[in-house]
Amino acid sequence: MSRSLAVAVAGAGSCFSSLVQFAAMARQQPAQLAGVMHERIGGYALSDLKFVAAFDVDREKVGLDLSKSILQSHVAAVAHVAVEPMDVAVEPGPLLDGLDGPLGQVITAHPDSTDMDPDVIRRRLVETGAEVLICLLPTGSTEGVQTYARAAALAGVAFVNATPEPVAHDADLVALFESRGVPLLGDDLRSHLGATALHTALLDLLHSRGLQVVNTYQLNVGGNTDFLNLADPVRSASKQRSKRRALSAAGIDARTVAAGPNGFVPHLGDTKVGFLRIEANSVLGSPLSLEIRMEVEDSPNAAGVLANAVRVAATARTAAVAGIVDDVCAFLFKSPRRPATEAVGLRDFQDYVKFVA
Amino acid sequence: MSRSLAVAVAGAGSCFSSLVQFAAMARQQPAQLAGVMHERIGGYALSDLKFVAAFDVDREKVGLDLSKSILQSHVAAVAHVAVEPMDVAVEPGPLLDGLDGPLGQVITAHPDSTDMDPDVIRRRLVETGAEVLICLLPTGSTEGVQTYARAAALAGVAFVNATPEPVAHDADLVALFESRGVPLLGDDLRSHLGATALHTALLDLLHSRGLQVVNTYQLNVGGNTDFLNLADPVRSASKQRSKRRALSAAGIDARTVAAGPNGFVPHLGDTKVGFLRIEANSVLGSPLSLEIRMEVEDSPNAAGVLANAVRVAATARTAAVAGIVDDVCAFLFKSPRRPATEAVGLRDFQDYVKFVA
Amino acid sequence: MSRSLAVAVAGAGSCFSSLVQFAAMARQQPAQLAGVMHERIGGYALSDLKFVAAFDVDREKVGLDLSKSILQSHVAAVAHVAVEPMDVAVEPGPLLDGLDGPLGQVITAHPDSTDMDPDVIRRRLVETGAEVLICLLPTGSTEGVQTYARAAALAGVAFVNATPEPVAHDADLVALFESRGVPLLGDDLRSHLGATALHTALLDLLHSRGLQVVNTYQLNVGGNTDFLNLADPVRSASKQRSKRRALSAAGIDARTVAAGPNGFVPHLGDTKVGFLRIEANSVLGSPLSLEIRMEVEDSPNAAGVLANAVRVAATARTAAVAGIVDDVCAFLFKSPRRPATEAVGLRDFQDYVKFVA
Amino acid sequence: MSRSLAVAVAGAGSCFSSLVQFAAMARQQPAQLAGVMHERIGGYALSDLKFVAAFDVDREKVGLDLSKSILQSHVAAVAHVAVEPMDVAVEPGPLLDGLDGPLGQVITAHPDSTDMDPDVIRRRLVETGAEVLICLLPTGSTEGVQTYARAAALAGVAFVNATPEPVAHDADLVALFESRGVPLLGDDLRSHLGATALHTALLDLLHSRGLQVVNTYQLNVGGNTDFLNLADPVRSASKQRSKRRALSAAGIDARTVAAGPNGFVPHLGDTKVGFLRIEANSVLGSPLSLEIRMEVEDSPNAAGVLANAVRVAATARTAAVAGIVDDVCAFLFKSPRRPATEAVGLRDFQDYVKFVA
Repeated sequence: MSRSLAVAVAGAGSCFSSLVQFAAMARQQPAQLAGVMHERIGGYALSDLKFVAAFDVDREKVGLDLSKSILQSHVAAVAHVAVEPMDVAVEPGPLLDGLDGPLGQVITAHPDSTDMDPDVIRRRLVETGAEVLICLLPTGSTEGVQTYARAAALAGVAFVNATPEPVAHDADLVALFESRGVPLLGDDLRSHLGATALHTALLDLLHSRGLQVVNTYQLNVGGNTDFLNLADPVRSASKQRSKRRALSAAGIDARTVAAGPNGFVPHLGDTKVGFLRIEANSVLGSPLSLEIRMEVEDSPNAAGVLANAVRVAATARTAAVAGIVDDVCAFLFKSPRRPATEAVGLRDFQDYVKFVA
Repeated sequence: MSRSLAVAVAGAGSCFSSLVQFAAMARQQPAQLAGVMHERIGGYALSDLKFVAAFDVDREKVGLDLSKSILQSHVAAVAHVAVEPMDVAVEPGPLLDGLDGPLGQVITAHPDSTDMDPDVIRRRLVETGAEVLICLLPTGSTEGVQTYARAAALAGVAFVNATPEPVAHDADLVALFESRGVPLLGDDLRSHLGATALHTALLDLLHSRGLQVVNTYQLNVGGNTDFLNLADPVRSASKQRSKRRALSAAGIDARTVAAGPNGFVPHLGDTKVGFLRIEANSVLGSPLSLEIRMEVEDSPNAAGVLANAVRVAATARTAAVAGIVDDVCAFLFKSPRRPATEAVGLRDFQDYVKFVA
Repeated sequence: MSRSLAVAVAGAGSCFSSLVQFAAMARQQPAQLAGVMHERIGGYALSDLKFVAAFDVDREKVGLDLSKSILQSHVAAVAHVAVEPMDVAVEPGPLLDGLDGPLGQVITAHPDSTDMDPDVIRRRLVETGAEVLICLLPTGSTEGVQTYARAAALAGVAFVNATPEPVAHDADLVALFESRGVPLLGDDLRSHLGATALHTALLDLLHSRGLQVVNTYQLNVGGNTDFLNLADPVRSASKQRSKRRALSAAGIDARTVAAGPNGFVPHLGDTKVGFLRIEANSVLGSPLSLEIRMEVEDSPNAAGVLANAVRVAATARTAAVAGIVDDVCAFLFKSPRRPATEAVGLRDFQDYVKFVA
Repeated sequence: MSRSLAVAVAGAGSCFSSLVQFAAMARQQPAQLAGVMHERIGGYALSDLKFVAAFDVDREKVGLDLSKSILQSHVAAVAHVAVEPMDVAVEPGPLLDGLDGPLGQVITAHPDSTDMDPDVIRRRLVETGAEVLICLLPTGSTEGVQTYARAAALAGVAFVNATPEPVAHDADLVALFESRGVPLLGDDLRSHLGATALHTALLDLLHSRGLQVVNTYQLNVGGNTDFLNLADPVRSASKQRSKRRALSAAGIDARTVAAGPNGFVPHLGDTKVGFLRIEANSVLGSPLSLEIRMEVEDSPNAAGVLANAVRVAATARTAAVAGIVDDVCAFLFKSPRRPATEAVGLRDFQDYVKFVA
């Protein structure tokens, strides 16, 4: 009774690698699967995901079978499970601003990706029968992300913007998705359980007790190419805006909070370390402080949310939703059009899943 | 339109001190009051609390006006606000097992408290017109706590058991409250925002994402007489059982979790430091760890919850509730008869407050 | 040119297990050996250690070959290296107060260990040709430790008191070792790099800059039988005295410092977690604070120091040193007769090693 | 018997403010002075410091009496002590690259500081009778720092380079100081007790026990103008090089260690927070990890070292030392010409002080 879900991906890096492994593990060891919120969303199991296309600019990845590309050297994602050959090769995508900043020093662009006609992407999405396109380009690649978004809208393929670059926050693109009757989810994928999810949950907890938050910081360091890229302040500008938006939705004055990224620590690899501090005034003006160190593997964390987002997107496409799927975005993304507290966002998401079941 | 709420207290220590100061601050600086969840519960403002009786065994406190006793030397509670004379003196209460363990080395019992007739308490509750009796005796004083509970039930005074000693978990006492038509709240007051509230909220968050918690600890140290008393493993046995119950309600195997108290650190005074760690398996079996240091002033933290509990208790007495007020206990206490997750407990409590508004 | 060093041990638990493995590793993989301060001390390499006797009261261990006993169930020590059969079996030792407290609930005494004649130990030490006896009995076993010390002195075997029970702090025993011309090292073995070594090194650093330490704590939790035993305040009393002595030697007012042990956390196994905090006043009265979390495997940490202590003891025996070997004890033990700062203790130890080389 | 020591300063920011206050406190409350390593160095007490000139480019500071300028708004340094009027006004210094980067957005240059003749500085040093010039310019101001260094050398005034810009690492400048017979101290002032001092002391401790350090990081955040300036990767390049040099001297492979600065957190003000982690292999290959959070007031921390450096510099000038004073620089600076371990650096410094006493 299960049907397959055709997925295309832009940016075949470590998050993509984790998602491919997650789907493979769902097929191989369904009983032991941790971190799955819903076995089925709109009838789709995680094991139904079928990867039909993957676009990248990295000369070392283009042409490789997906099962091989996910273990390719620049990918910090750990191999958690063996993946069978998939008979789908990584295709070149348009370079544009994808390797601006520090990434350009460690990754060489494939020759076909420079000066590429963006319409190729639209055509390939149609040819491969993709239902959903997940955008996992590096932070700061505004042109690249918006190019893929436009191609998806024109091809009638639901779009999941995992990056902080503006798509759900770009009025023209939102109008395009609406006019073409295509669903859009974004911007800036939350981690399944990352520093921002934890931060906002804690702020909610304090506010529920009437405490006044005085000062707070959230500092993040890591060793994968995401953090290498974010070490450039120009590239990370959109990320910082997005994090501030997420904390603002939890009732914090977003201008005063300090939120990373805060450094590239090579030996950490795909491990991300977050330091959070919250100082608050409680009863009788007495002080409360929380200092937290969170350690998490970065890419699997993203795969957990993508497993939800991609299935919601497919469901919305079947239901011919036009434009942003607001009900699920507050829970799945850091910069949704309509932010909500952790509790409200979770409830709305769960209601949506129940509704489409 | 506001009416006063007559409160009696057994155990005039640092939590009592904070509650008295909290009510005084509500009268003096209502605008700046942090940590108040509800301005009114059943019509009562925090400023309506009127302390009509206080029982203690400490020779240094008996006979002092309450406004003076709250600054008395063994009391670690910080003076946050000036309190006017209250024309109510601390009265002797029955000693029983109140100073067993380490407390007996720093506190001398008042002569009248030994071999005292417990019925005196019942009589004094009636004479002073007390509506609610809050029990703040040291952990481990099972006899003492149950004696005050019996006196309250017989006097028709609502009982708030802030200690981990069994009252809501003692079938005979519960039956007594039911038969006398008197409300009972307990056992073991949560902190307004303490280590256990934080711990269970975090476990809820992880479970909501499908993560599997593997190992966890909660270690607490402090420098007030509560921690001095708890340094004795015999005295702290009921406390540990209660903490495990609270974590069990959050879906943790309570036999395997380590939960303090873990030491008396004199220089901390009324400051409590908690160390929490949670290790979990996430997507693809990837590890997640949280290490948290929480610093909080202990007694005001209790006063925040007491401010809720005492007003709920008075409301329940007016409504002639007989026995345990289950709807509010999961949120207010660590060992309620009917435990619930953080989210459910909070919702039930808020519903109750809305209902009696 | 190397000669063997005959070692006997009282208390064949996890520290003993680590020491046996450490010597085995020194023979098997000398190149990769971490944590060895000196390849040779007085001519002895670590690989020269030969275990000639081991005494224990545990029914599950007595009779087993040492190579098997070191993996026996109550022993939390991890197997780091394969150990060949050693043709030496664990022998029963006198029970006395060895299993008082919580240990008595998880360990059953061997029948031969009750009412045993202590002189058997002296005889066995002579018969086996032991040169050094290392005492690793559980904390709190004052009678047991002093019984072994007496046997060693009478047998002319150098004694290393790794426990906090008083031997170097017992005038009669010290006199006995002096009169018999036998060397004595103790009391209370430091970890190779444990919480107390770290704590005192940090205090030294602050003092070297003229900072005034205001408050400090050191909290330790673990999951091996040492921590199970120490959870009993009666058993841990000698341990706490010893830790305070060590901090006092670093210039801290030992009455005010809080130093654990602070709890048995079963899931930690042989891992020990220490929380240290130091608050100090610096230039212009400005505050400085350090909060440290240290995680370390407990037993190998002890083996590192034992590897030094046992070779020093053998050297001192050869040189006919009578009584306490003060020059090395400040570095190797927490409660030496003559304490010193970290820097001075280290220098004296290194000088001694150079002298006997 | 005490004589005064004439001090000039380039960069009248928060470190300067702390040094002025430190000297004032030494005069007012000599008994309570914390953080002073030596009451006298070469006969000079801290209270002997007399500030004869201060150069800055900030329009808000130029023209103010020093006693007022040290409380000026951009200065995050806390007022710890009242300072009397000093009859010395802040003078304009040459702008050059002083406000490149983020500082240019919050500080406006005084008109006289642009296109200023650098020889003015040399003349003013001579006119004011300065004996030592302390350079406290923002990190990244290579031109500015080297201009002041040249002026000092030509004026015969000892130079203390507290910045990471190359002076002791610039062969031409070193040659100039040598040929003019003028002492030079640098580069990059250590904190009195900062993250790098702590980091290197801990690495020394681990190495002294034979442990192998595997991974380590040092992350620093703060809220003063130093951290605002360092948020620009171009400006902070010299700082990072200098930190790596310091860790390298402690035996760490400097290419692999991650060392901040890691972010501007406005609410921290002059407080600096450092996160250190050290992972090592110990006995039997067992793992040891240290995770440290250090909180310290940044500017007083610098003043503590300056109090040593300025008196050493004056002493060296009297003794006609030509060029770098190597014996003290390993202890006082992060990037000395001749690095040493913490222990060796401290010993050499103490020997020097004893020698000139």
